[in-house]
Amino acid sequence: MENIFTDEFFMKKALQEAEIAFEKGEIPVGAVIVIDNRVIARTHNLTELLHDVTAHAEMQAITSAANFIGGKYLKDCTLYVTLEPCQMCAGALYWSQISKIVFGASDENRGFQKMGTQLHPKTQVISGVLEKECGDLMKAFFKNKR
Amino acid sequence: MENIFTDEFFMKKALQEAEIAFEKGEIPVGAVIVIDNRVIARTHNLTELLHDVTAHAEMQAITSAANFIGGKYLKDCTLYVTLEPCQMCAGALYWSQISKIVFGASDENRGFQKMGTQLHPKTQVISGVLEKECGDLMKAFFKNKR
Repeated sequence: MENIFTDEFFMKKALQEAEIAFEKGEIPVGAVIVIDNRVIARTHNLTELLHDVTAHAEMQAITSAANFIGGKYLKDCTLYVTLEPCQMCAGALYWSQISKIVFGASDENRGFQKMGTQLHPKTQVISGVLEKECGDLMKAFFKNKR
Repeated sequence: MENIFTDEFFMKKALQEAEIAFEKGEIPVGAVIVIDNRVIARTHNLTELLHDVTAHAEMQAITSAANFIGGKYLKDCTLYVTLEPCQMCAGALYWSQISKIVFGASDENRGFQKMGTQLHPKTQVISGVLEKECGDLMKAFFKNKR
């Protein structure tokens, strides 16, 4: 039997969250955190609604997943996020010791890779999953804003 | 009349918060955010209690101050924090566009300066205020842990 639980499968869930953010007028970034093929956190950017720069999808997902697990380390978890994490989110992911980060679109300006933010040495990074879909949603958002 | 509202004055408030964290068994870091000489946020590290790596004193202070202000930017605010911010907290401070960051003890291992985390270009940084007191509290904590 084919494994349905691919990176694309879970990135689609993150993309659904990003679409909810889009509808709310938020920069459309969505995230899910998965453990043993089970989604344990499902979040989207809420910085405008909450007037809070810390309310990125990833930050909420980390808090939510840790709450589910009952511990602060996300060692066996994978984060799926539609946009490359920023310095803040990568810094939080560093502390969480998360196993794997999968992101969709790159952020050439403020992404952690360009900024040089350090992840935990055990964290694996995969990029470009559903890159076009994730990026197109961002482009549509900023086109609407102009 | 002498100005009582010095950096030391507000760092003492942050240190009081760090002492509360110490008593709770948390890594003793405290923070306050000030606008027009008024403390609008007062927080301490709660990562153990909340099982949440994002619950650093600075992160809570940013959220709390933004809530007080009713907007996400902290342009006219100063953060006083007993320990040099990490990548995550510096990344959050970048987004907040905070005016000034004053910290006590340096973090030679995981502080944002060594890690190269970028702050907003308008953010001023002052270090070493009540450095010994802030650092001594950290040392006392880790000595207890051994």
